[in-house]
Amino acid sequence: MANQTWKDDLAAREGEHLNEFLELLRMPSISTEPQHAEAVKETADWVADRLRKAGVPEVVIAESKGHPSVLGRWHVADDQPTILIYGHYDVQPVEPLDLWVSPPFEPELRDGTIVARGSSDMKGNLLTAVQGVEAAARANGGQPPINVSFIFEGEEEIGSPHFRDIIREHKDFLHADAVISADGGQFSEDTPSLGVSLKGLGGVQVNLTTANTDLHSGSYGAWVPNAVQAMVQLAATFHDKDGRVQVAGFYDAVRELTQAERDEVALLPIDEEEAKQKLDVDALWGEAGFSPRERQWTRPTLDLNGIWGGFQGEGVKTVTPSQAHLKITCRLVADQDPANIVELIRAHVEANRPPGATVEVVPLPGSARPYAVDRNHPVFGAVSDILSELYGKDPVIVRAGGTVPATGIFQDELGVETITLGWGLPDSKAHAPNEWYRVEDYNRGRVGYAMLLERLKK
Amino acid sequence: MANQTWKDDLAAREGEHLNEFLELLRMPSISTEPQHAEAVKETADWVADRLRKAGVPEVVIAESKGHPSVLGRWHVADDQPTILIYGHYDVQPVEPLDLWVSPPFEPELRDGTIVARGSSDMKGNLLTAVQGVEAAARANGGQPPINVSFIFEGEEEIGSPHFRDIIREHKDFLHADAVISADGGQFSEDTPSLGVSLKGLGGVQVNLTTANTDLHSGSYGAWVPNAVQAMVQLAATFHDKDGRVQVAGFYDAVRELTQAERDEVALLPIDEEEAKQKLDVDALWGEAGFSPRERQWTRPTLDLNGIWGGFQGEGVKTVTPSQAHLKITCRLVADQDPANIVELIRAHVEANRPPGATVEVVPLPGSARPYAVDRNHPVFGAVSDILSELYGKDPVIVRAGGTVPATGIFQDELGVETITLGWGLPDSKAHAPNEWYRVEDYNRGRVGYAMLLERLKK
Repeated sequence: MANQTWKDDLAAREGEHLNEFLELLRMPSISTEPQHAEAVKETADWVADRLRKAGVPEVVIAESKGHPSVLGRWHVADDQPTILIYGHYDVQPVEPLDLWVSPPFEPELRDGTIVARGSSDMKGNLLTAVQGVEAAARANGGQPPINVSFIFEGEEEIGSPHFRDIIREHKDFLHADAVISADGGQFSEDTPSLGVSLKGLGGVQVNLTTANTDLHSGSYGAWVPNAVQAMVQLAATFHDKDGRVQVAGFYDAVRELTQAERDEVALLPIDEEEAKQKLDVDALWGEAGFSPRERQWTRPTLDLNGIWGGFQGEGVKTVTPSQAHLKITCRLVADQDPANIVELIRAHVEANRPPGATVEVVPLPGSARPYAVDRNHPVFGAVSDILSELYGKDPVIVRAGGTVPATGIFQDELGVETITLGWGLPDSKAHAPNEWYRVEDYNRGRVGYAMLLERLKK
Repeated sequence: MANQTWKDDLAAREGEHLNEFLELLRMPSISTEPQHAEAVKETADWVADRLRKAGVPEVVIAESKGHPSVLGRWHVADDQPTILIYGHYDVQPVEPLDLWVSPPFEPELRDGTIVARGSSDMKGNLLTAVQGVEAAARANGGQPPINVSFIFEGEEEIGSPHFRDIIREHKDFLHADAVISADGGQFSEDTPSLGVSLKGLGGVQVNLTTANTDLHSGSYGAWVPNAVQAMVQLAATFHDKDGRVQVAGFYDAVRELTQAERDEVALLPIDEEEAKQKLDVDALWGEAGFSPRERQWTRPTLDLNGIWGGFQGEGVKTVTPSQAHLKITCRLVADQDPANIVELIRAHVEANRPPGATVEVVPLPGSARPYAVDRNHPVFGAVSDILSELYGKDPVIVRAGGTVPATGIFQDELGVETITLGWGLPDSKAHAPNEWYRVEDYNRGRVGYAMLLERLKK
C-alpha cells in the first residue's frame, strides 16, 4: 500500500527533515528590515533549492519591486486536480531581544518544541508541506498523485504589497483548482479546526490640522483650536459607550449571523475570566450584544491603532499643538467592502470635523475583502476528513479575526478558493519572543500533506 | 540737570552699547542643549564681567545643579529703596535652522531691527537694563541714585528648575523692595503697556494601560480594551462642546471678573477675523461666554499639549495598543492652586477611567501659582509714569496668558512684588526663526531704566 510506503519513508527521514527545518530557521529572513535583505534573498534561494530537491520540475524565483516569491509547478496529469500550496518564508522582527531565552535564529529543542523565530509562523508549516508532497511523490513512482504547485512569498509579514503583481504575472503557471494555505494552525494540541472565514481589512490615516504653526499655550491656548484637543473629540466619536461603531452605514452591508451560525460559534466560547487574568485587565470591551467570540470572529470593528500629536518628550512643553494624527484599521466581515468603508469613514470625519480644524483622510495600503470559504468545495471536505483521521476527532469550525490578503488575491486573480491546513497553535508566540512549534505537529504536518495529495487523487 | 547728563551719555555711547548687544547675541547660550553648556557658562561670565564693568561692586556667579545665575548687588544707601532687576541670559533652540534668513547667532541689522536668536527674548532687555543703570550711576557721581541688585538666570527657557534653590541660598544678597522683571514687552511699537497679572501653571501626564502587552487587532481588537481608544474616550471628557473644562471643582476657586475688569479687558479686543486669517483657521475655540481676550487673559484653561500611543510609523500596523499617554497643562488664574488642580484632575481621571484600563496621573514639574500685581505698589506707579513719558501716552493695562515662575518664587521666597518693564513686541518671533528686536526700542530701554532709578529716588 502506497500509504504505508510514504508513512515509513517519512518516519525514516524524521531526523533529516527536522535538520532541514533547523537549517531554514537559522536564516534571518526578516522582511521588514533592510539589513536582512540579503538573508531574505538567500532564504528564497534555499526554498527554491528545496523544491528542486523534492523533484519539482519547474521552479521560478519571481522577482518583484520587493522581496521575491518562490514558485513551483509539478504538473503530472491533465485529468488530475491541481492544488496550489501557499505560504511565506519571511518572518517577523525579533525585538525585544532580551526576552528571548535562546537567540531567535539559533533554534533550540525544548520540551518537545523547537524555539526560534519563524518556527510557528511559518517555516515549519512550509517545510512540512514540501516534505509531505515529496514523500507522496516518492511513494508514487517519483511523481505526486495529483498536480501540485507552490507559491511561497517573502513579504507576508509586511502586508504582501507586491503579491498581487506576482500572481498576475504568473497566472498561467499558478492555475489551480484550489489553494491550500499552509499559513494556519489548529485549535489546540488535540483538537483540529477548520477555518471558514477571514476578516477583511480597510484603513485610513486621519491628519488633523488647526493653526498653521504650533502656538504658545499661554498666548493662544485659551482661544485658538488645539489639534490634540480636536483630535480626541473627533476620535471619540467613532464608538458609542457600548462599543458600537458610530460611522453611518458601517454595519449596513454586514450579513447578520443565522441562529445556526451563532450556535456554531457558541461551541467555542472565550473564557472571559481566564482572558482577563491573562491580559491583566479588569474588564473586556467591544460591541454590546455579542459574546467576545462573536465579536472576534463575526463582527466588524474599527480599531484605533495609533495616535500622536504635540509634545511627547520628558517634562513639560506648554504648546498648543497644530497637528495630530490617527491610524485606523477596520476588520471587516461579509459583505463589507474596504473601499466603501474608507469612504464612510471619510464622510464621518468630515461630518464630525471639529470647528477650526481641517481634516485629511488618507487610505492606507493593505486593504482586503472579507473572505468566507465555500464549505461545499471538495477540497474543504478532503481537508476535514484528513484532520478527523489525524486527530481522531472531527475538526471544530473556527473563523479568523485576522486577515490574509492572499486569499482575496487568489479569489480575484485566479478565481479559486483557499482552504487552510497548517499546524501552529494559538499560544505559539508568533510575532513575539520565544516563538515555538511542536515536533509532534511537525511530524503530523508532513503526514497530513502526503495524505491530502492521495486523498484528492481521482 | 543730571537727567540731561545721562541722556547725553547714552546717546554718545549708542554705537558702543549696540556693539555689546551684538557681542552678547553671538554667544549661543541655548540652555536646553547639552552641547551648548560651555557657551551658557561663557555667557554667564560675560554678563558678570559686564556688571563689574558697569561698576557693580558685588558680583556673584551662583552655581546650581543646572546652569548658574549671575547676581549683582550695588548697595548705595540704607535710606534708599532697593530694586532687584530680573532677567535671563539663556535662549531658546534655533530649529528649524533653514527658516532663518541669516544665521541665528550672527546678528544682522535689518530694517531698523536686529535679527538674532535671543534678541527679543531677552538679551536686548537684559543689556538695556544694565546699560541704563550704568548711565544713571555715571550721571550720579559713579553710584546709582538708589540701591540696585540684579539676578539673571540661565534656565528660564527650561522652566527655571533650580531658580528657587538659588534664590533661597542668596536671600540676604537679593533682599529688595520690588523686583523689576526685564523679561517682558510692550503692547505695540507706539503703545506701552503694563502687565497686571500672570497665569499660573499646573500639569500632569496621564499614562493609560490596558492589556499587559500590545495585541494583534485581528485576534483581540474586537473584545479587549484598546489603550488609544480608551485614552481618546478619557481625553474627550475634559471639555464640553462649549470649551468649558469639565473637571469637577476646576472653576471653584476662580475669582470672577468685576464689570470694571471686564470693561478694562474689553479695551483691547482680539481682532477675531484677523486672527483667523493669520492662523489659517476657520473658527476660534474656547470657553463659551467669554471673548477671546477674556479667555486669554482671565480664564483658566486645561490644555492638551501632547498625546501618543500605538503605531505612529508609515503604513499599517494592525495593533491593539496597550499603552497611551497624554500631556496636560492648565493655565490658572487667581485663586486657583496648582497642587489642588492636579488633585482635581487625578479625581476626574479616576472617575472617568474607561473599563478595562488602568490610569496613572503623574504631576509635571514647573508648576506656578497665578500672579496679580498690586497696582498700588509705588514701583507700579513709577513704571507707569515712565512709560507715559517715553511713549507720550498712558500705558494700556494688559494681563498675560503665560506664566513666569520667577514671579511666584520672588513672592514666596523674598516676599516682594514683580513689576515688568521690557521692550519686546508681540510679533518679534521669540522662540521662532528670525527673532528680532527694534534698535529704537533698544535705545528706549536704556533710557527707561535710567529714568526708573532717578524716579524711585527718595
